[in-house]
Amino acid sequence: MRAVQVIGYHRDLEMTEVPAPSAVDPHDVIVRIGGAGVCRTDIHILEGQWEQKSGVTLPYTIGHENAGWVHAVGSAVTNVAEGDKVIVHPLMTCGLCRACRSGDDVHCARSQFPGIDTHGGYAEYLRTTARSVVKLDDSLEPADVAALADAGLTAYHAAANAARRLRPGDRCVVIGAGGLGHIGIQVLAALTAAELVVVDRNPDAVDLGRSVGAHHGVVADGTHVAQVAELTGGEGAEVVLDFVGEGGSTREGLAMTRRAGDYHVVGYGENVDVPTIDLVSAEINIIGNLVGSYGDLCELMVLAARGKVTLHTTKYPLADFQKAIDDLDAGRVRGRAILIP
Amino acid sequence: MRAVQVIGYHRDLEMTEVPAPSAVDPHDVIVRIGGAGVCRTDIHILEGQWEQKSGVTLPYTIGHENAGWVHAVGSAVTNVAEGDKVIVHPLMTCGLCRACRSGDDVHCARSQFPGIDTHGGYAEYLRTTARSVVKLDDSLEPADVAALADAGLTAYHAAANAARRLRPGDRCVVIGAGGLGHIGIQVLAALTAAELVVVDRNPDAVDLGRSVGAHHGVVADGTHVAQVAELTGGEGAEVVLDFVGEGGSTREGLAMTRRAGDYHVVGYGENVDVPTIDLVSAEINIIGNLVGSYGDLCELMVLAARGKVTLHTTKYPLADFQKAIDDLDAGRVRGRAILIP
Amino acid sequence: MRAVQVIGYHRDLEMTEVPAPSAVDPHDVIVRIGGAGVCRTDIHILEGQWEQKSGVTLPYTIGHENAGWVHAVGSAVTNVAEGDKVIVHPLMTCGLCRACRSGDDVHCARSQFPGIDTHGGYAEYLRTTARSVVKLDDSLEPADVAALADAGLTAYHAAANAARRLRPGDRCVVIGAGGLGHIGIQVLAALTAAELVVVDRNPDAVDLGRSVGAHHGVVADGTHVAQVAELTGGEGAEVVLDFVGEGGSTREGLAMTRRAGDYHVVGYGENVDVPTIDLVSAEINIIGNLVGSYGDLCELMVLAARGKVTLHTTKYPLADFQKAIDDLDAGRVRGRAILIP
Amino acid sequence: MRAVQVIGYHRDLEMTEVPAPSAVDPHDVIVRIGGAGVCRTDIHILEGQWEQKSGVTLPYTIGHENAGWVHAVGSAVTNVAEGDKVIVHPLMTCGLCRACRSGDDVHCARSQFPGIDTHGGYAEYLRTTARSVVKLDDSLEPADVAALADAGLTAYHAAANAARRLRPGDRCVVIGAGGLGHIGIQVLAALTAAELVVVDRNPDAVDLGRSVGAHHGVVADGTHVAQVAELTGGEGAEVVLDFVGEGGSTREGLAMTRRAGDYHVVGYGENVDVPTIDLVSAEINIIGNLVGSYGDLCELMVLAARGKVTLHTTKYPLADFQKAIDDLDAGRVRGRAILIP
Repeated sequence: MRAVQVIGYHRDLEMTEVPAPSAVDPHDVIVRIGGAGVCRTDIHILEGQWEQKSGVTLPYTIGHENAGWVHAVGSAVTNVAEGDKVIVHPLMTCGLCRACRSGDDVHCARSQFPGIDTHGGYAEYLRTTARSVVKLDDSLEPADVAALADAGLTAYHAAANAARRLRPGDRCVVIGAGGLGHIGIQVLAALTAAELVVVDRNPDAVDLGRSVGAHHGVVADGTHVAQVAELTGGEGAEVVLDFVGEGGSTREGLAMTRRAGDYHVVGYGENVDVPTIDLVSAEINIIGNLVGSYGDLCELMVLAARGKVTLHTTKYPLADFQKAIDDLDAGRVRGRAILIP
Repeated sequence: MRAVQVIGYHRDLEMTEVPAPSAVDPHDVIVRIGGAGVCRTDIHILEGQWEQKSGVTLPYTIGHENAGWVHAVGSAVTNVAEGDKVIVHPLMTCGLCRACRSGDDVHCARSQFPGIDTHGGYAEYLRTTARSVVKLDDSLEPADVAALADAGLTAYHAAANAARRLRPGDRCVVIGAGGLGHIGIQVLAALTAAELVVVDRNPDAVDLGRSVGAHHGVVADGTHVAQVAELTGGEGAEVVLDFVGEGGSTREGLAMTRRAGDYHVVGYGENVDVPTIDLVSAEINIIGNLVGSYGDLCELMVLAARGKVTLHTTKYPLADFQKAIDDLDAGRVRGRAILIP
Repeated sequence: MRAVQVIGYHRDLEMTEVPAPSAVDPHDVIVRIGGAGVCRTDIHILEGQWEQKSGVTLPYTIGHENAGWVHAVGSAVTNVAEGDKVIVHPLMTCGLCRACRSGDDVHCARSQFPGIDTHGGYAEYLRTTARSVVKLDDSLEPADVAALADAGLTAYHAAANAARRLRPGDRCVVIGAGGLGHIGIQVLAALTAAELVVVDRNPDAVDLGRSVGAHHGVVADGTHVAQVAELTGGEGAEVVLDFVGEGGSTREGLAMTRRAGDYHVVGYGENVDVPTIDLVSAEINIIGNLVGSYGDLCELMVLAARGKVTLHTTKYPLADFQKAIDDLDAGRVRGRAILIP
Repeated sequence: MRAVQVIGYHRDLEMTEVPAPSAVDPHDVIVRIGGAGVCRTDIHILEGQWEQKSGVTLPYTIGHENAGWVHAVGSAVTNVAEGDKVIVHPLMTCGLCRACRSGDDVHCARSQFPGIDTHGGYAEYLRTTARSVVKLDDSLEPADVAALADAGLTAYHAAANAARRLRPGDRCVVIGAGGLGHIGIQVLAALTAAELVVVDRNPDAVDLGRSVGAHHGVVADGTHVAQVAELTGGEGAEVVLDFVGEGGSTREGLAMTRRAGDYHVVGYGENVDVPTIDLVSAEINIIGNLVGSYGDLCELMVLAARGKVTLHTTKYPLADFQKAIDDLDAGRVRGRAILIP
């Protein structure tokens, strides 16, 4: 089959012919790729940023946001059958460790991450397991939802986590209305009756945030902390979701958080640097958020099937992978770029 | 009545005669002081550290850890009667704001703090309200429990908060086995079946921690992060309670926290300074903890009445207030110093 | 002022002149009534069903669903001021008992219930306290929301309680789409992404349920348990909310509940009669629901102000109280009847 | 190997030679039995009470409370190795359904139940899977803990479930201090600071309950509901755990439950028959409890290893199975009877 592979760091990807994977282990599932999301992480991989962390052996097939159709299943697979439309959770997990057994499979003690540390989905077929495939509603197409497998799932996880404490009338600030943030806003609007405030440096992103559910928009022009204070009666918001995590957003996000409130870190880059006295005297919590669990992905697909979460995509034939990467790097992609084999 | 007052910053306290308070408002409760805890904060007040923050008008009566007997009550008081033994919650709260109505009275929108921003308990009588008095079990004496009103309550709040997620076999590290930490350990031992690890620079404190319930003791000698790693199978603890908050304990505490774990800040001094990528990739939460609520104080008094939380005290006549302060400042007090009018 | 009073059981109400209440206690609030809901309970009171339970001394003013404007306040009231538009929580609560302090004021140890055991709101003015008044958004009018004070609040409480466990894609069956049920559906639609199924004997009520947010409608024609089974893949629903509680609905509701599911009792009349082996082997919970707390009422008013919960009302001048009662008794009221002084 | 089998209903068990099981599927684990608990359910099976429910094909090997040593493992097993001491969770679960993935494996959509619907542990070897074995602490012996696998696990599940809401000073009534109840009391004492009240018809059982942690003992002599009322200030207990479920215990248990309290059904036999008005007006919850999850069993083994949960056992050689059954049936077993191959 055709596969797009990393053949070296600081070099372009190359398309090559490799053997298609087959179902060897009893829980294996082979997915015929219907769409693979192109993510900024893919560019970081080529830059070598993941070389130490992943320890992957080159060459290998990249691509960690995948959806398609079940092509073959191992002997013990009972939850999907050949032909089923599926989205693929980004991790392959063991199912036996405490984390896996309690629904927190993201913290699996022995997980693999296709596209990062083993073969991914820029290809015609992908090997994953029964534990990682979620059946899609008839109304959804793999290429349309592929990018929800990682970027969307991270946003869902943080927003659904935050939603657990948001009561009607509570205020939730979303910092950053980009790829993740605008999904987060849709999720909050679907799961809560909180008052949503979107903050972004880009006025267009603020408009996007308002169009998908935010009640108030604030352009981050230097007065934004004060504006949020005004919108929240001087108290700050019960919850702040920071999808940026750099350029000062952590300090600002904490300043927007009210007493006994939660500041969620999703985006990353800079340090959180805060006096302990401030955390103690205001009883503020700083909550780390990683990608969502398999259960989170099931729930996100329910919202997608209901039309409550939508994502703009730009599709490219798999052979045009380089153009997709270049367009992403140059900021020319609207929404998410998707490769179609 | 006699009262010990702040008459100026950077000056000694002075005992003087002042009018005894009386029950004016319908919810007022006048407490005849049976014991008032001497706290390091009292020294900080004299150093002027609270001058701006409290805005209190001098002279005023200091002392925020109080217990005694109900001397008089206002017309609307139904929960206590003259003669009842009581401990006094450190805040006077409004009862009408959202925080007060949901059990989170510590975040009352209009609270007063006797001993800090209004008259406190280094005196024969104290004015507080029906919302702040907790009746004591027959087996408890005011002078023995007074110091649980603030220091103990803070430790209880953090430990009880942490206990909500600790399952049997989970590991909980307590950093600092001083005044607060050794109460925290007793609370954890009473409320959980977690495995408790105490960490302190002082070997005597480590021994104290073990004697009140910790299963493992670690002297903070530079190898303590590694020792905790070894005690937790290389994973770190599900929960870390940091009663120190300075001298590097925040960095070390976070390093002792396992993936998806909670790091609780109780002590304060330095900054938490941590890369967002670390919070995100390990999904760690940083939890701020302030003093406990009225409900927390009720629960702590249950543990005290059962003998599950005990506190060593050194008692001084009220007139010896200066000696108590001097002894505390010089590190000569074992447990907590208590003034007895 | 004019007031409509119970002067004897099994007799009609009578309008009479009584002294207007005034603010005596420091937390008293006098409300000028803008609307008072007419409830089936009012008819039951006249039938003597509450005579023993309430122990009220006749004559007294009836009416427990009240909203209006603040007319006068006691000396300690800080949360509302003269002229504020307010809805009145049906209970007057003490604020000092454990239930009140933890947000569960409905279980106050010393509550009063205006309209049931003390003077209510079929009158020009009502005495309540600062703890029972919720300020209304500018967009809401007292007469439009008065019936949310009790009937709507009960539905909100049960639905918001159920919402805590409903994840996207979970199924929730609402039995009964009458006065409470159709509010419950609106609340579930606002707070969850669950799949909502409405069941009612009356096809018009089923249509109403669908029009306010239910995804599926089932007419209770004898096949309804089987229909719900089919809609839920043979498993039953994660949550069933029974707003009927009689005529066999408890047995049917339990039969619609899936393993590890919750069956909420809101309406009442018959007995729940179920083999313990069924509760144990399927791990089903039966959840009792009373009226909502003050916090629930605040949240419901947020949904009302956003237009997410609406109620059809038929208004009558206060003097036409008998006609309103007669119309309700004869089934001629669409939505809720409201008396306007 | 030797195995004790059901060869027909209403007939005695028979010991016979059968082929030992081997690890066929990749997650299979073969356990050499160290002890198998003899349970009243085994007698019920012989009486034919499970014939329809289980649909098992005769002859088959009985025994559902098993512990021993890992004898062989399938190719995909990573959590145990040959020679490990293990206790066996009573269910074999799929690991792929929603219940399994969220920690609620007891509600697995495709579980098997060795000893009930497939071969159990009255034998030298048992086939189970990697998902069902929990490694034992060095200090524990299989024959001593085997009966915790089902009876103990059920008690743990209910008590740990109840413990989540019990705050220090709350009251918890345990009805029935037999095999399950006396484990439940030990678990409550380990996990909570609640005030525990044991109720039993048998004064010896009441004494046992007090000796393992109950603070108050009540002999069920007809005045027990009144006695509990007196012990709880007339309010009833926040939580009631009913390990009996027959002979009137459900009505009495509900009468002992305070407003907003939880009544847990664990034992079964009679119907719960309660007016809906009582559930609604007091907001009481009736909670069904089945056996515990794999996670519950892990936690219970932590308590056992710490000596916080102990069980009296009477051991019999496997060949004396009939004597063990007869002794149990005649009430001659103190604690639990255990068969040792």
